[in-house]
Amino acid sequence: MYSFRNDYSEGAHPRVLQRLVDTNLTQTCGYALDPMSDAARETIRRVCGAPEADVHFLSGGTQTNLLTIAAFLRPFEAVIAPATAHISLHEAGAIEATGHKVCAVETPDGKLTPAMVEAVLDAHPDEFMVRPKMVYIADTTELGTIYTKAELTALRRCCDAHGLYLGLDGARLGSALTAPGNDLALPDLAALTDAFYIGGTKNGALFGEALVLRRPIDHFRWHMKQRGATLAKGRLMALQFQALLEDGLYFEIARHANDMALRLRRGMAELGYEFPLPSPSNQQFPVLPNTVARQLEELGYQFEPERVIDADHTCVRFVTSWATPPSAVDEFLRDLAACK
Amino acid sequence: MYSFRNDYSEGAHPRVLQRLVDTNLTQTCGYALDPMSDAARETIRRVCGAPEADVHFLSGGTQTNLLTIAAFLRPFEAVIAPATAHISLHEAGAIEATGHKVCAVETPDGKLTPAMVEAVLDAHPDEFMVRPKMVYIADTTELGTIYTKAELTALRRCCDAHGLYLGLDGARLGSALTAPGNDLALPDLAALTDAFYIGGTKNGALFGEALVLRRPIDHFRWHMKQRGATLAKGRLMALQFQALLEDGLYFEIARHANDMALRLRRGMAELGYEFPLPSPSNQQFPVLPNTVARQLEELGYQFEPERVIDADHTCVRFVTSWATPPSAVDEFLRDLAACK
Amino acid sequence: MYSFRNDYSEGAHPRVLQRLVDTNLTQTCGYALDPMSDAARETIRRVCGAPEADVHFLSGGTQTNLLTIAAFLRPFEAVIAPATAHISLHEAGAIEATGHKVCAVETPDGKLTPAMVEAVLDAHPDEFMVRPKMVYIADTTELGTIYTKAELTALRRCCDAHGLYLGLDGARLGSALTAPGNDLALPDLAALTDAFYIGGTKNGALFGEALVLRRPIDHFRWHMKQRGATLAKGRLMALQFQALLEDGLYFEIARHANDMALRLRRGMAELGYEFPLPSPSNQQFPVLPNTVARQLEELGYQFEPERVIDADHTCVRFVTSWATPPSAVDEFLRDLAACK
Amino acid sequence: MYSFRNDYSEGAHPRVLQRLVDTNLTQTCGYALDPMSDAARETIRRVCGAPEADVHFLSGGTQTNLLTIAAFLRPFEAVIAPATAHISLHEAGAIEATGHKVCAVETPDGKLTPAMVEAVLDAHPDEFMVRPKMVYIADTTELGTIYTKAELTALRRCCDAHGLYLGLDGARLGSALTAPGNDLALPDLAALTDAFYIGGTKNGALFGEALVLRRPIDHFRWHMKQRGATLAKGRLMALQFQALLEDGLYFEIARHANDMALRLRRGMAELGYEFPLPSPSNQQFPVLPNTVARQLEELGYQFEPERVIDADHTCVRFVTSWATPPSAVDEFLRDLAACK
Repeated sequence: MYSFRNDYSEGAHPRVLQRLVDTNLTQTCGYALDPMSDAARETIRRVCGAPEADVHFLSGGTQTNLLTIAAFLRPFEAVIAPATAHISLHEAGAIEATGHKVCAVETPDGKLTPAMVEAVLDAHPDEFMVRPKMVYIADTTELGTIYTKAELTALRRCCDAHGLYLGLDGARLGSALTAPGNDLALPDLAALTDAFYIGGTKNGALFGEALVLRRPIDHFRWHMKQRGATLAKGRLMALQFQALLEDGLYFEIARHANDMALRLRRGMAELGYEFPLPSPSNQQFPVLPNTVARQLEELGYQFEPERVIDADHTCVRFVTSWATPPSAVDEFLRDLAACK
Repeated sequence: MYSFRNDYSEGAHPRVLQRLVDTNLTQTCGYALDPMSDAARETIRRVCGAPEADVHFLSGGTQTNLLTIAAFLRPFEAVIAPATAHISLHEAGAIEATGHKVCAVETPDGKLTPAMVEAVLDAHPDEFMVRPKMVYIADTTELGTIYTKAELTALRRCCDAHGLYLGLDGARLGSALTAPGNDLALPDLAALTDAFYIGGTKNGALFGEALVLRRPIDHFRWHMKQRGATLAKGRLMALQFQALLEDGLYFEIARHANDMALRLRRGMAELGYEFPLPSPSNQQFPVLPNTVARQLEELGYQFEPERVIDADHTCVRFVTSWATPPSAVDEFLRDLAACK
Repeated sequence: MYSFRNDYSEGAHPRVLQRLVDTNLTQTCGYALDPMSDAARETIRRVCGAPEADVHFLSGGTQTNLLTIAAFLRPFEAVIAPATAHISLHEAGAIEATGHKVCAVETPDGKLTPAMVEAVLDAHPDEFMVRPKMVYIADTTELGTIYTKAELTALRRCCDAHGLYLGLDGARLGSALTAPGNDLALPDLAALTDAFYIGGTKNGALFGEALVLRRPIDHFRWHMKQRGATLAKGRLMALQFQALLEDGLYFEIARHANDMALRLRRGMAELGYEFPLPSPSNQQFPVLPNTVARQLEELGYQFEPERVIDADHTCVRFVTSWATPPSAVDEFLRDLAACK
Repeated sequence: MYSFRNDYSEGAHPRVLQRLVDTNLTQTCGYALDPMSDAARETIRRVCGAPEADVHFLSGGTQTNLLTIAAFLRPFEAVIAPATAHISLHEAGAIEATGHKVCAVETPDGKLTPAMVEAVLDAHPDEFMVRPKMVYIADTTELGTIYTKAELTALRRCCDAHGLYLGLDGARLGSALTAPGNDLALPDLAALTDAFYIGGTKNGALFGEALVLRRPIDHFRWHMKQRGATLAKGRLMALQFQALLEDGLYFEIARHANDMALRLRRGMAELGYEFPLPSPSNQQFPVLPNTVARQLEELGYQFEPERVIDADHTCVRFVTSWATPPSAVDEFLRDLAACK
């Protein structure tokens, strides 16, 4: 039975993996200082419409987040993020381990607004408190929701008004940028944030995230090395992003993941299940009676609990990916329909 | 022309890469909690003769070193290492960034002795100084030298006598364990160290190091997550180590790398070049007249300077690997012979 | 006009300062390793009924908090505290700067309950999150409220049930232990917490806090030195605590501070002012019309805003101390009565 | 018998302590934001001839060093210091605990030269190494030696040429600036360093160091608070420095300390003892036969071993201070003469 537990249950998209096979025995220098990595960085600058951006390849999301935040902030500075953010809750204190506080904000939908940011600033007026200096959001959010161009632009203006940096966790950026209702594109992100990353791990790469810095940060590669984030064969990630981004594969497969998620959602909705969160992306959060959840698990389906609704119901998370076949969704829906 | 710059100039040994291709579309859960990862851990315990060891897969050497040291030490504790150690010099302060001092010791050959360790302890008697608590060595060392079983046993006894942990950086462990003169094997390392790693990156893997902890450390996976070292698709590294270790491929290709290094050394020695360091492993450090070095570079050969000998001579580093063909060595020697 | 801004507006209680004068030219060794410091530690153990406790003298509250928390926790562990706690909000990220997350809990009155602690534990089940390992409270709290013996005992049981440490910030412990309704004494704190401190700075000392560890922590003095918290003339703090604690001066002057606070509260209440928080201690939080606040400030009185109530009213903080004369309170009340 | 163990064996110079007595009951706001602290900062700017300098009061040397270094450096940057420096050896890893490596340099006399600094820079060329960014010296050094104006100027030029900061640990600055052969004065230090501190603890204050920053550092007070270095009654240190610096007391008593040291040295030299280190300041390092050292200890004299010379001889340290009476030196010399 299919696992909807995550979007990193398989390896890589075959065209991505093939790129590694094709280049396997070519010699290059290490640390992403080679021509293949240069080419991938150039591709990323091109698709981002950002010829002056600095691009770095990192092996995972937590690593990218902690590194970026630690590189931007001075010791007494803090980052503002939603309470549901990966950096707030799901990184085992990785940000704090670099010395920085995460000012966590309660949100209805996992998204920050300028008003929320300003409330945090108001609460931190003097030297007895940390100094919030960076706003850190995710698109999609951890709740599957997405930012609009207007919303992101408003956050940028708020950041400019208050001298804040704006960072964006793009672990599921492919899904965000291809979701119904999205009006953002890579060039918008490159123009509106100080740092964002194009997530590879959850959208077709074996592993890897491509961090895009609007402007080079002084000595960023020193930060990388110091945090253990410099991969010897850095080209491995570059090659994967080259394969994903040079001709649109990244968006094609992300759109597929979303299609599968919406196919699942539509099917479940038709069966009467509710989705309290308005996610248009590849994470869906239906409410299941616990009896139904158990039957599905016994059949071998995998998915994760999100939160308890009441003694008999749980909001769960289903995740689809580039690898999810329509048949797996349809089979699941048939099995779900048969649950009592 | 061949690059002798490093042992990570290519991708992975074809059998390693094939393992990733073969398993690519199989679904598993993430974070190396899947059956493939279990199997690889079991293989590693078996080849180490260490059924109680704890095994973790990490993506690179600096990450493994900083994580291990930070997990073993309390804030005021320090690590003792040779001044030439990777952790002393070549990790951009990664250990210090976790809050720990590296007590660096000058050595003639990159190797620590019990007497050197005890001299450091004597110099740190009280609360005004850090408390050295871990000895951290490498095999092969950064100078290509190796430890004997007697030497490692003596260090272990020294550590036991003084309540110290013993860690070993095995970035080039394959080369060490197959070098002429070596009498250590994986079970010795598992028995004599508290933590060591089997280096994959520099011996046939795309990337990855397998950390072996003699005994599980409390909450080690929390440490990993906090440092950004938990790979979503953790199985990627497990599969590579399975391919490398299940039937001896790891040692077979390491021995090849050493053979190529010694073929190079022999050939250069016959041409009259000197090797001040007694390395029996896949790093060789000949002294070249600068005029010769320049000619080789003009031919397209790649290698790195190690240190200046005098105005006209430089000690350089040549590195061979699992991927170095004998023909590349022979061609190099012919070209070298033709240099004036 | 009198400043009610804080309880550290003056120097030291004259008997405390005299002790420094009397011993000024006596030679001792440094770092609180001298006989005077031994004697003060012995006095503290005696008044705490804790012959096995370990006692350390530190120069301020933030330093004591960060040091204690950093000494107890391993890197991935976190501390649970009220959102209003000094360590959550008012220490410029000092705890995070040692690498640890503060899990901040919203409370109605600045106090933690076992249910709140358990809710945090439930929300941190696995390796992707920090591991809460210490509960950190204050008595009095930052809102002036105090813990009862039953409440503290319940927290201790909760901590024992879940393997947590319990720490207590005693910056205003004198005020807490002499407040109406208090049923705790120093021996209770020594028995029920793993670490607490007897605040000197805010109750009659020039500076200094006496940290009491139920049991010695391994190498605590190394932690102190590493954080810059080892005072060369450590005896200076010991002598002050000796003067404060050997014959009950500490409690006598704390009771005076509370008496002054309640005199102020009674007087203001008679004038019709409201106190939304039920503080029985030396911090009082009346609501003032902004017009009245302004008149008082123009007269030269000093106090701090706590939070905005509405466009016309502010909750403010008045603090009394060992040094507050009854006449200052009475004069203030007369002036307040004259405000329009 | 007199203790020559250190220059912080007593409390404060009586005129310093009297200042605290005189101001004891005056109310001011906290954190050195009061008029008394303003006045002391102004005095310090005046005696330093540095109207634009920023001045901060800190409670001890280790705290001042770690705070200053952490405030100047970015995460991957390191500090260059002599191997004998307090920050290298005697601060329990305080600098590393803020994340920064100390690049320790062997020196003959505890002093850095431009050539030594440049050798460190040469050894740290790329992103695999920390980036040395600050030179940190002490005057007097830990070996009692002092810098000349020419030497300090040369270091400043070296720092300017390489974009380095220059910091100076002035724990014993009074002794340095009044030593025979000294040609530096406070205005030189303010002009030639980016940060230095005027040590109070070891020259007449109860405690406290006055950090002088050539130019204000952004948000330095946030750094202070975060490291637990903001004293509630910050004025306590300001008042002491006011007393020490407003009319030259600081230098008068430092000169006395030096006079006592040289009286001791002269007397011991006349008795045939050797002083291998050329210290002109208040630390003197004679070589004693172990039999003599033992006799002196039995008489009750206190001093510290510096290093073993051979099986029968030890180089020891004698320290004099503002409080050392000539009679104590003379009595010691008589007793020494009587030793066999």
